[in-house]
Amino acid sequence: MNRRDFNFALVGTIGSLAFDPHPLSQSQLRVNGPRILEHINGLAEFGKNPQGGASRVAYSEFDRQGREYVVGLMREAKLDVSIDAAGNIIGRRAGNAKLAPLLFGSHIDTVPEGGNYDGVVGSLGAIEVTQTLVESNITTRHPLEVVIFQNEEGGLIGSRAMDGELTDKELNLISRSGKTIREGIKFIGGDPEKLLTARRKPGDVTAYLELHIEQGGILEAEKVDIGVVEGIVGINWWDVTIEGFANHAGTTPMNKRQDALLAAAKFIEAVNRVVTGVPGRQVGTVGRIQALPGAPNVIPGKVILSLELRDLDAAKINMLYQQIQAEAERIAKASGTKFDFKEINVNIPALTDARIKQLIGESARELGLTTKQMPSGAGHDAQDMARLAPVGMIFIPSVGGISHSPREFSRSQDIANGANVLLQTLLKLDA
Amino acid sequence: MNRRDFNFALVGTIGSLAFDPHPLSQSQLRVNGPRILEHINGLAEFGKNPQGGASRVAYSEFDRQGREYVVGLMREAKLDVSIDAAGNIIGRRAGNAKLAPLLFGSHIDTVPEGGNYDGVVGSLGAIEVTQTLVESNITTRHPLEVVIFQNEEGGLIGSRAMDGELTDKELNLISRSGKTIREGIKFIGGDPEKLLTARRKPGDVTAYLELHIEQGGILEAEKVDIGVVEGIVGINWWDVTIEGFANHAGTTPMNKRQDALLAAAKFIEAVNRVVTGVPGRQVGTVGRIQALPGAPNVIPGKVILSLELRDLDAAKINMLYQQIQAEAERIAKASGTKFDFKEINVNIPALTDARIKQLIGESARELGLTTKQMPSGAGHDAQDMARLAPVGMIFIPSVGGISHSPREFSRSQDIANGANVLLQTLLKLDA
Repeated sequence: MNRRDFNFALVGTIGSLAFDPHPLSQSQLRVNGPRILEHINGLAEFGKNPQGGASRVAYSEFDRQGREYVVGLMREAKLDVSIDAAGNIIGRRAGNAKLAPLLFGSHIDTVPEGGNYDGVVGSLGAIEVTQTLVESNITTRHPLEVVIFQNEEGGLIGSRAMDGELTDKELNLISRSGKTIREGIKFIGGDPEKLLTARRKPGDVTAYLELHIEQGGILEAEKVDIGVVEGIVGINWWDVTIEGFANHAGTTPMNKRQDALLAAAKFIEAVNRVVTGVPGRQVGTVGRIQALPGAPNVIPGKVILSLELRDLDAAKINMLYQQIQAEAERIAKASGTKFDFKEINVNIPALTDARIKQLIGESARELGLTTKQMPSGAGHDAQDMARLAPVGMIFIPSVGGISHSPREFSRSQDIANGANVLLQTLLKLDA
Repeated sequence: MNRRDFNFALVGTIGSLAFDPHPLSQSQLRVNGPRILEHINGLAEFGKNPQGGASRVAYSEFDRQGREYVVGLMREAKLDVSIDAAGNIIGRRAGNAKLAPLLFGSHIDTVPEGGNYDGVVGSLGAIEVTQTLVESNITTRHPLEVVIFQNEEGGLIGSRAMDGELTDKELNLISRSGKTIREGIKFIGGDPEKLLTARRKPGDVTAYLELHIEQGGILEAEKVDIGVVEGIVGINWWDVTIEGFANHAGTTPMNKRQDALLAAAKFIEAVNRVVTGVPGRQVGTVGRIQALPGAPNVIPGKVILSLELRDLDAAKINMLYQQIQAEAERIAKASGTKFDFKEINVNIPALTDARIKQLIGESARELGLTTKQMPSGAGHDAQDMARLAPVGMIFIPSVGGISHSPREFSRSQDIANGANVLLQTLLKLDA
């Protein structure tokens, strides 16, 4: 028996006493945890990997099928379903038409060989919240909109269309599905020529809430139930080119080399040293490297690698970058190489709303759950919504901190907890 | 006027005095330096790159044309030309048929976008030596064989066929030309089904001499004319796999990572530290690296890199390898990664013959040239010939130490010097 069943049982008992009870208080309302799991398993069938998890890449046939499944769930929850011009699925439940809607949701597309929880928990958790409200005959003051953003994994495309950031140039980029984003939007029922109609402006949305798996291992390691997200970190990505001199590995003495890969090795170590050298939760990663010409018997003359820094504080990212550049200069001087930094992408940090953080914390505590304030190291649609409205994010533990993998997993109790926190926070926001 | 012209002029003067002079002493014999340059320029037309140098990859049409050109030069030098079953070009000049021949030569194939000197100087220098002998009416005791080995750059194929190492399996490998080695051998006039007829056994060859550019920058930096090669270094090549754990670069705190690329960086530094930590001319190179999955936003879970060690002393290579393995173990322990070493290729060191080294040194000094004993860090056909006969190698300076590049260059005086040392050493060996 889960908590919700217990509550219904209680109501039934009270009812049978022919009492005139207070109606079930909203704070006692609970989602149907097993039903969320049933839906997660249902959605997992679309793009299921042989080794578990799913490959439901945006704009693929599996993505289309998964979206149809979700539209079905929304209809069961009595939502009024539409696809906006950007291809986002919107499930609306009426409220006072004069109030701007409360939005909540996530995404159901996955990375290739992804898992069954990233995006899915927040999407199906949001639908479950509306289903719970329907079954309890509760109508909120604000209209509610469950949003399933399209192509989150390919660059937050759906939410960036909603806040007007998606450019025409980007529409022509090839997505992982092989289709351009423009073709992809058509494929899932949007209309790329009318993107402006999908756009929302500040004031159009009362607030945005997103439930999501942590994708890191902190909550699990610290045995905390709920993460209250302080913000989505800024992400700065550079391509770093190191020029040395390619030469014969047999005939060039060690002291005559300008080995770009040896310089790169020192750089990778320096990045780690700088990033871990100051207190805080910042991270720095070299994830991609190419050495040219790339033969065992040739000293690398050129290396291209990626440098990525993330933190909630853009000033801190900048400070770390300055230190890393200074280290690169030192390495270059000592090794006869040359470093060049090219900025590829910058996502500025997006802070969550202080009041919503407080409501999430209160909701969790009332549910008997422990909480921890933390940044989101991963990007989320919430960061784009933060340009339009106050946002809040609720994290639940990821077992082993594993994500973007068939081994991604979150426990059923944590999923139900997260959805209950979402429900309670929504009700508090509506009040 | 170069030295040879001077000598001829001297002889002419003496002749005109109607004296009965001693015939021109063999030690005064000099090659025609400008003629070698003319032939180098002639050969450079076949596969000429727009930016200089040549792409005359073995078994390509340009290789075939270059070989025809060289056969023409051999015929001008009155050599009896044949193609052995392995596709090596042999230009023979008779001597005492009871004596095993003296072999000397090199190769004319190049790497893609290679230069005009690697292999070419030794090949055309050898032909020039025989031309000089012809013009001076000198017949050696030993038969002479100028050998142009085929496909040196693709794995010493011609010389490995001559010493019986080339396997049937290798014949089916695809060469850089796109043809299999078997097809390539047919294409250049050999007969892969009769490879055994190209094989020579110990005793079949009196000695092998090879003139070659250094391909490193030592002779030029130290202003030495001639390198007396002590041997061709052994080359050991391993592929090293480092297993960490791939994870999300945003959500995985720095202290929870098992970053295979960070471990690889420490390893690359350790290789350099170990190799430069003991006196000697050993070299160690990491030339190739691949990080998986290789995305800017994913912590690398796996790295595969190449490790190559070279030295004249196989025991020293082994000692360095032991130290590198110990360093890898330390890094693995500290970083939560796992290192695996897979031996890909081993070329054992090939020492040159002590007496031939002495004769090269004497010849150079008699020509007024400075010498330096040095290892060959690059592989050469001479290393295979060392299994059959005593070998000697003569190096001339490479400007800037650049090789396998259109920028490869050796000065004309150094080329003439090298050919004269080859000529004099050959005559001493024959005596």
